[in-house]
Amino acid sequence: MFLTFAPPTAFRTSLFARFRPAADCRRSPRHAVRASACESPTDHFREECGVVGVWRHPEASAVAYYALHALQHRGQEGAGIVSATDDTLHEHKGLGLVSEVFENALHLIPGDAAIAHNRYSTAGEKNVRNVQPFRASFREGQVAIAHNGNLTNAQKLRMELELRGSIFATSSDTEVVLHLMATSVSSSAGIERKAADALNRVEGAFSIILLTTNRLIAVRDPYGFRPLVMGELALEGRPPALVFASESCALDIVSARMTREIEPGEMVVVDRDGHVSNWFPFPSVRRRACVFEHIYFSKPSSIVFGRSVYMSRFRFGQLLATSCPLPEADAVVPVPESGVPAALGYASASGIQFQQAIIRSHYVGRTFIQPTQTARDIGVKLKLAPVEALIRGKSVVVVDDSIVRGTTSRKIVRMLREAGARQVHIRIACPPITGGCFYGVDTPDKEKLLSYRMSDEEACRFIEADSLAFLPLNAMHEFLGDEAPTFCDACFSGEYPVLPAVVDEKIGGLV
Amino acid sequence: MFLTFAPPTAFRTSLFARFRPAADCRRSPRHAVRASACESPTDHFREECGVVGVWRHPEASAVAYYALHALQHRGQEGAGIVSATDDTLHEHKGLGLVSEVFENALHLIPGDAAIAHNRYSTAGEKNVRNVQPFRASFREGQVAIAHNGNLTNAQKLRMELELRGSIFATSSDTEVVLHLMATSVSSSAGIERKAADALNRVEGAFSIILLTTNRLIAVRDPYGFRPLVMGELALEGRPPALVFASESCALDIVSARMTREIEPGEMVVVDRDGHVSNWFPFPSVRRRACVFEHIYFSKPSSIVFGRSVYMSRFRFGQLLATSCPLPEADAVVPVPESGVPAALGYASASGIQFQQAIIRSHYVGRTFIQPTQTARDIGVKLKLAPVEALIRGKSVVVVDDSIVRGTTSRKIVRMLREAGARQVHIRIACPPITGGCFYGVDTPDKEKLLSYRMSDEEACRFIEADSLAFLPLNAMHEFLGDEAPTFCDACFSGEYPVLPAVVDEKIGGLV
Amino acid sequence: MFLTFAPPTAFRTSLFARFRPAADCRRSPRHAVRASACESPTDHFREECGVVGVWRHPEASAVAYYALHALQHRGQEGAGIVSATDDTLHEHKGLGLVSEVFENALHLIPGDAAIAHNRYSTAGEKNVRNVQPFRASFREGQVAIAHNGNLTNAQKLRMELELRGSIFATSSDTEVVLHLMATSVSSSAGIERKAADALNRVEGAFSIILLTTNRLIAVRDPYGFRPLVMGELALEGRPPALVFASESCALDIVSARMTREIEPGEMVVVDRDGHVSNWFPFPSVRRRACVFEHIYFSKPSSIVFGRSVYMSRFRFGQLLATSCPLPEADAVVPVPESGVPAALGYASASGIQFQQAIIRSHYVGRTFIQPTQTARDIGVKLKLAPVEALIRGKSVVVVDDSIVRGTTSRKIVRMLREAGARQVHIRIACPPITGGCFYGVDTPDKEKLLSYRMSDEEACRFIEADSLAFLPLNAMHEFLGDEAPTFCDACFSGEYPVLPAVVDEKIGGLV
Amino acid sequence: MFLTFAPPTAFRTSLFARFRPAADCRRSPRHAVRASACESPTDHFREECGVVGVWRHPEASAVAYYALHALQHRGQEGAGIVSATDDTLHEHKGLGLVSEVFENALHLIPGDAAIAHNRYSTAGEKNVRNVQPFRASFREGQVAIAHNGNLTNAQKLRMELELRGSIFATSSDTEVVLHLMATSVSSSAGIERKAADALNRVEGAFSIILLTTNRLIAVRDPYGFRPLVMGELALEGRPPALVFASESCALDIVSARMTREIEPGEMVVVDRDGHVSNWFPFPSVRRRACVFEHIYFSKPSSIVFGRSVYMSRFRFGQLLATSCPLPEADAVVPVPESGVPAALGYASASGIQFQQAIIRSHYVGRTFIQPTQTARDIGVKLKLAPVEALIRGKSVVVVDDSIVRGTTSRKIVRMLREAGARQVHIRIACPPITGGCFYGVDTPDKEKLLSYRMSDEEACRFIEADSLAFLPLNAMHEFLGDEAPTFCDACFSGEYPVLPAVVDEKIGGLV
Repeated sequence: MFLTFAPPTAFRTSLFARFRPAADCRRSPRHAVRASACESPTDHFREECGVVGVWRHPEASAVAYYALHALQHRGQEGAGIVSATDDTLHEHKGLGLVSEVFENALHLIPGDAAIAHNRYSTAGEKNVRNVQPFRASFREGQVAIAHNGNLTNAQKLRMELELRGSIFATSSDTEVVLHLMATSVSSSAGIERKAADALNRVEGAFSIILLTTNRLIAVRDPYGFRPLVMGELALEGRPPALVFASESCALDIVSARMTREIEPGEMVVVDRDGHVSNWFPFPSVRRRACVFEHIYFSKPSSIVFGRSVYMSRFRFGQLLATSCPLPEADAVVPVPESGVPAALGYASASGIQFQQAIIRSHYVGRTFIQPTQTARDIGVKLKLAPVEALIRGKSVVVVDDSIVRGTTSRKIVRMLREAGARQVHIRIACPPITGGCFYGVDTPDKEKLLSYRMSDEEACRFIEADSLAFLPLNAMHEFLGDEAPTFCDACFSGEYPVLPAVVDEKIGGLV
Repeated sequence: MFLTFAPPTAFRTSLFARFRPAADCRRSPRHAVRASACESPTDHFREECGVVGVWRHPEASAVAYYALHALQHRGQEGAGIVSATDDTLHEHKGLGLVSEVFENALHLIPGDAAIAHNRYSTAGEKNVRNVQPFRASFREGQVAIAHNGNLTNAQKLRMELELRGSIFATSSDTEVVLHLMATSVSSSAGIERKAADALNRVEGAFSIILLTTNRLIAVRDPYGFRPLVMGELALEGRPPALVFASESCALDIVSARMTREIEPGEMVVVDRDGHVSNWFPFPSVRRRACVFEHIYFSKPSSIVFGRSVYMSRFRFGQLLATSCPLPEADAVVPVPESGVPAALGYASASGIQFQQAIIRSHYVGRTFIQPTQTARDIGVKLKLAPVEALIRGKSVVVVDDSIVRGTTSRKIVRMLREAGARQVHIRIACPPITGGCFYGVDTPDKEKLLSYRMSDEEACRFIEADSLAFLPLNAMHEFLGDEAPTFCDACFSGEYPVLPAVVDEKIGGLV
Repeated sequence: MFLTFAPPTAFRTSLFARFRPAADCRRSPRHAVRASACESPTDHFREECGVVGVWRHPEASAVAYYALHALQHRGQEGAGIVSATDDTLHEHKGLGLVSEVFENALHLIPGDAAIAHNRYSTAGEKNVRNVQPFRASFREGQVAIAHNGNLTNAQKLRMELELRGSIFATSSDTEVVLHLMATSVSSSAGIERKAADALNRVEGAFSIILLTTNRLIAVRDPYGFRPLVMGELALEGRPPALVFASESCALDIVSARMTREIEPGEMVVVDRDGHVSNWFPFPSVRRRACVFEHIYFSKPSSIVFGRSVYMSRFRFGQLLATSCPLPEADAVVPVPESGVPAALGYASASGIQFQQAIIRSHYVGRTFIQPTQTARDIGVKLKLAPVEALIRGKSVVVVDDSIVRGTTSRKIVRMLREAGARQVHIRIACPPITGGCFYGVDTPDKEKLLSYRMSDEEACRFIEADSLAFLPLNAMHEFLGDEAPTFCDACFSGEYPVLPAVVDEKIGGLV
Repeated sequence: MFLTFAPPTAFRTSLFARFRPAADCRRSPRHAVRASACESPTDHFREECGVVGVWRHPEASAVAYYALHALQHRGQEGAGIVSATDDTLHEHKGLGLVSEVFENALHLIPGDAAIAHNRYSTAGEKNVRNVQPFRASFREGQVAIAHNGNLTNAQKLRMELELRGSIFATSSDTEVVLHLMATSVSSSAGIERKAADALNRVEGAFSIILLTTNRLIAVRDPYGFRPLVMGELALEGRPPALVFASESCALDIVSARMTREIEPGEMVVVDRDGHVSNWFPFPSVRRRACVFEHIYFSKPSSIVFGRSVYMSRFRFGQLLATSCPLPEADAVVPVPESGVPAALGYASASGIQFQQAIIRSHYVGRTFIQPTQTARDIGVKLKLAPVEALIRGKSVVVVDDSIVRGTTSRKIVRMLREAGARQVHIRIACPPITGGCFYGVDTPDKEKLLSYRMSDEEACRFIEADSLAFLPLNAMHEFLGDEAPTFCDACFSGEYPVLPAVVDEKIGGLV
């Protein structure tokens, strides 16, 4: 879900034209002359969100809590759980990490069903009002919603809803879904019918879990941008509980067995009696699963879109090594932690020794940066420490999963040079990011993207590396094989499956 | 505002018939034989809420904060402020006392206009979602609402709204007003027109302050159940700021001068240019101001409904003394703090020496009661300490403002007897409470009201006093004089000006 | 106990000479001409400390907790409890109010014996290291100490101890006692013998409770400056528990019966078997009980030095009225809460109506003062609210227990004039304070004392009152009667029973 | 520093005899027959402490804060900083992580010198009183001490000190040093002389930093058990600041350049004028540096005892692979994070592919374990997640740095088998731990050490692995080369350089 409906800054349809000549070393041979011309940034896209659903488990909230914990990497700003007992919903939400929010709070959310949400951290309003699941009551009773994704026509729908008399309590696109359900004119009763009606009116990305006192509904948009899996948790002497989650790692932690993905466009409904039904209420389109889930977002231990995330990254690293070979280097060094699988792949394909020459602090999470001169000199060292014995006098290949603004990459290069590195080569295990995302990822303004702003040569100079290279887009496609067209790579290619609705006029005000 | 729409437990129209023969010593001479037969308990009705509005002050939130502080007695569970800058509203809310909620938070609520709310403490869901002001956006833009009172037809309206597609984010009756505004078909534009439409559809008690980015609206229901005053705060070199508040004490603390009450049924609108207009959008009815504001709720230093609260209580005490005289006693002792003015009045009329023989602890607010045997023996002593030198061997008259369940009164009687009192006479400066309130006061189930459950004689035995007497209802009327019919005394007399709408069927579920 | 050993600022022996001509209206007739020349300030001395001991109670820590709660007025900065089980001591301490410090902490302090301490709030180092009881181990085993009072030769003793090799962990004079016990050359074994040796070397004020794993010792200095009482708490089926405390109100709250005071110079020792012994290990001197305990420090419900505190204050008020009569006034108004008993006495003697025309906020404790212009205009109104109906156009007599700097008094006068008072007469129920205290009270620099700085006439002008009068010292003496010489009134009279040791040279550094 | 003086449980001199026949596969060929007989556990020794000193830096506390942050792995229970201004010391301490303790607190510890301490987490009393640096005043003035290590004769010295009249405020051995300094009869003045006297009386391990208002002293015991380095931090326009720390990584974070180690037995003194002097006040002995610093305690990026910690671990892994080769396996998997360098070494020597097949959660730090059945089934999965794609059907070699009780190892083996592993071989990059440590490491009772309790074969069965092997002691010696005799490996070899003083009689009680 997304807090502001405005499309990424300065969005113009014309921008989607291919504006960017292939400038990196693999695509443009002229850049290959100087390996130092192959470069890239290294900070990350912001995490999106994680959703969880638990059905028919005597400790549903506890299961949801641990599943949220396993999905903590998808959002660290806030978390919430809504649970259901026979006649009502219960909620607990808060800002902070999952373990902080739910310390001593599980008793507040009883019942044998629960849905849960991890919210990512935005620069904007950190207010508990925007922490999901959202809970509301309407003529069908109480309902709660947890949403991962982003609705591209939310602002337009919100205007229409306001014109008919709806009031909005949050600034989230997710709330639109609840209003559409409440105003659905579907003559058939049933929350699932109303949910299908509502979701047929929205555009964009959604992996949504809904909870009422007698239903749990898991549904994925027809493009299947964001992941959603289901599994079974065996219980002694009773039928297995059902667990739904953004990634399979959330099933693993509670020892649930992943049974399958929710298909793109599929709605799965489970009722009090344990009856599971599914249908496909949306027009069929080709899947466009987010490839960035494999590049950075998902946990390496997860199976996402039917593939091992770790193995994808390892293979990206191998392809990176073969697509832009280095004459020689002393060590392959990952930017911890997310760069490790790709760096291992790079090392395996290049034959260069892998070394963990940058150590990550375990305690950096909430470090208080003191308002002192000393603090300004600390920089990236608070989080990362170089192993000088592996670096001094050496030529090192630093592998990172992706690069966004490039500012962190530059700090890492400087840190390694201070530690005595003879040469620092940066290798990025994904193509250059040249556009934002409209499907649930918090991306900076396009103007801040390193690879939008400058050629690979310029980027290499910006981050002060000896060379910079990206995984070529066609290498990524080659790896994906026949499935390549079923992945969304719009942030690299500019091919956006759905464009945001343009809203001419603002009637109501955002809360 | 009220969190549950259900009428006070076991509400039946027939119950409003006069079911209770006058049983206390003043009304029933047979009881007067033994003064010891006149008794009563002493715990209190729960506080209601306090509202504040500030317009055109450079530090509007700071003014609202101090005004809320002065109204802290009207609600201790939570507090919130919503402020307005040119183009948006800002909010900060939280559970806890005003000073806790807003510590280091004023910078989050900038702007030169603000409304604020103190929420009372209920046994129910202590969740920040129910802390006002509520904020929403609809086709007219953003709006925030702070409400003191209770809408008697909220549940019925909510059902109708849900049937037309509205969703509810809270379990509060106050939210209904926002939906009614959003769905108003008033052809005239303007938030005040929509507010008038909406409030013409609700029944019950409301003193409401609304805020948009360019309007502040203060409005009081036509009965004028709950108070609402306005004043001016002089500012150097610019026009005075306007301040609205439940009681005049909130104006006093910020050195604002009270200019007048908002009249029953009046709506006052101030706009960005400082233009103040007022109108009376409701059908005219006779005022029914809550007499309990003078008995217990309001601060003694406030002017409420045009009268000094302190002087009312002092006079209640005098009338109490003359209506049920005691042959002799050594001291008049108030139950601190609320019983002090009445006890002083009692002493002045009876000629018995006033002594503060029960000392109240200043630090009891948040006392942690240890789960030990010792704790169970502490009882009321944690809060109140008897001055044995004034009590041992003496006959004392204990004056309290009101009595609800009687359990605290009994503890006080026992404490005084332990401290050596020869006789303990309880005098209550209001009539016996025999019914609940539908207009914004959190009252216990009728079955728990001491004076509903038993005669004054029985009540006297229950609280173990030597005698118990109440202020006779006619004495209260006599004090109010010509204005008596303009006060609501339903909790004593059973004469409810408005009865709750009976809701046959529950469609949506409360959140 | 006292945190800094330095004597009150600019202390000079010569200052103790009578330097101050009797300037107030009662002592100097020339001032009586203009009643307006009788004036005084109204802020207070800082509270000192409270101590508690509990012996042979199955929930000793819980009893100590509630007793501390009743003594909260004696110190609000921090609190601690040390308990004893058979073979070791346990502790829990913290900064904050008693209920904050011990929330969920009683399980940390098990055992059937405990001592406890409330620490007053100083401007200086708020560090938990200075929160008592102090705990240490030495050759006799573990010991803990809780001290109310101040040792006038602590710095000298500390130097001597440092010269012989002792190290100091705190900046408190109390620690000296532990070192003296550890270095006692008393050949007789036994902690009580060593305590007596140690306390024979200190000078000044001490009401001390010591705890070891098999002894509780309560001891009071030979002058008996500070109070200390003992009582019994009946227990079913076993011998009564013993409870020791600074004031009887701490016994009352736990339903213990006060049996007697610890006498000046007496040491009471109780051992594991419940054997209680007492002796008088110090040279005999005339008692010099602190009269200020009756003026301000102690709770009105306490019996202190054999007298009811409430009754003393009531009588001070009566004597104040008769010693400096006013021709006429409309109301006697206490400065709440501490001024109430004296104001009642004043009213009873003068015949002027007592009214609680200044209302104290219950919620002011931790009010966050916002750093805004608005805050600077709030002043005393955050805490006190005038009842205008009682004040406008009236001449009021404001009674306070004491006046220190006079700044608060001036704010109150101004507030009352804003509320319309025609005349404001200030009456102080103690003599003018012209000197500091060396015996356990935190007094400001002498130069800041209103009555040291200026005559009563000047003081009256300073606080902007129409008149100011103090209780004459001889009137106070008259009230104390034969016992007058057994009270210390040095802060009024300059007659200090013990003068601080002058320390020429500082060897060690304070921690 | 150590909180309890009692030697590790059931300590007997006779136990130091070689009691343990070489039972692992490398030492006993009969075990090599079945590789599955080579096994071991994997939990860790508790971290010890970290110390820091900063001299002549305008933001000394900020520098100390970041240095402490870099040493957070040495202790997570609590942290403290004591700083010095011209005439006094300042302190701030607390329980929790460094960033929690010092949030918004640096202003409390001004000055241009500071010492700091990280305290490890023990099962025992978590009380801020035991958080260092300890601060005291004695005849020489104020002094503060921060200590890493453990004094083996502290209890004996404490008794002697108590007999002469010293009192102890903590239960830490470190406090003994302060008392010995205070009672030093050294005729020469000067804090360094007294410190040398005091430290000549203690036995055991100490890397200590002392601070007074005009001196900073860094000193290391003659065996040099624990590390201590010094460095310079360049400052613009003034002489460089000096920084002392347990490990070089603390210098790195603040961009200080490590100049050298403090030598075993060396005392370095710096004074206000910046004059640095050093001397060797202790009898000379052979160095016995703790080899476990290289195995587990120190950060891989640190230089400790003149060697790169990372390189030692990498080499341990290589030697482990060659000393006990496996016929075949599919992947080398580290137990993150500490097992990574050894696993990389193992992979490089064995030619088996390194894979990060166990993913560590970044957010596990403070996870609240809910008291539910679900929680009991979570186990190690909260912290570690297997990458099934790398494990299912595979034979994996799991490399950990050390094994203590073996319980965690067993959980990891089970987790991998659940993830489908065909074979799980455990390899431990240090010799079997058969004894506790007396020099500053918190070790469990010997009876709980896996390799003390059972042979390697039994241990392999206990942890349910297919095989278990340790790094042979002689392989470790081989790696250390000529320096082998200068390392303490007592926890493997039983050769304790210093034995604890046996204390027959307890006189005082521990606090």
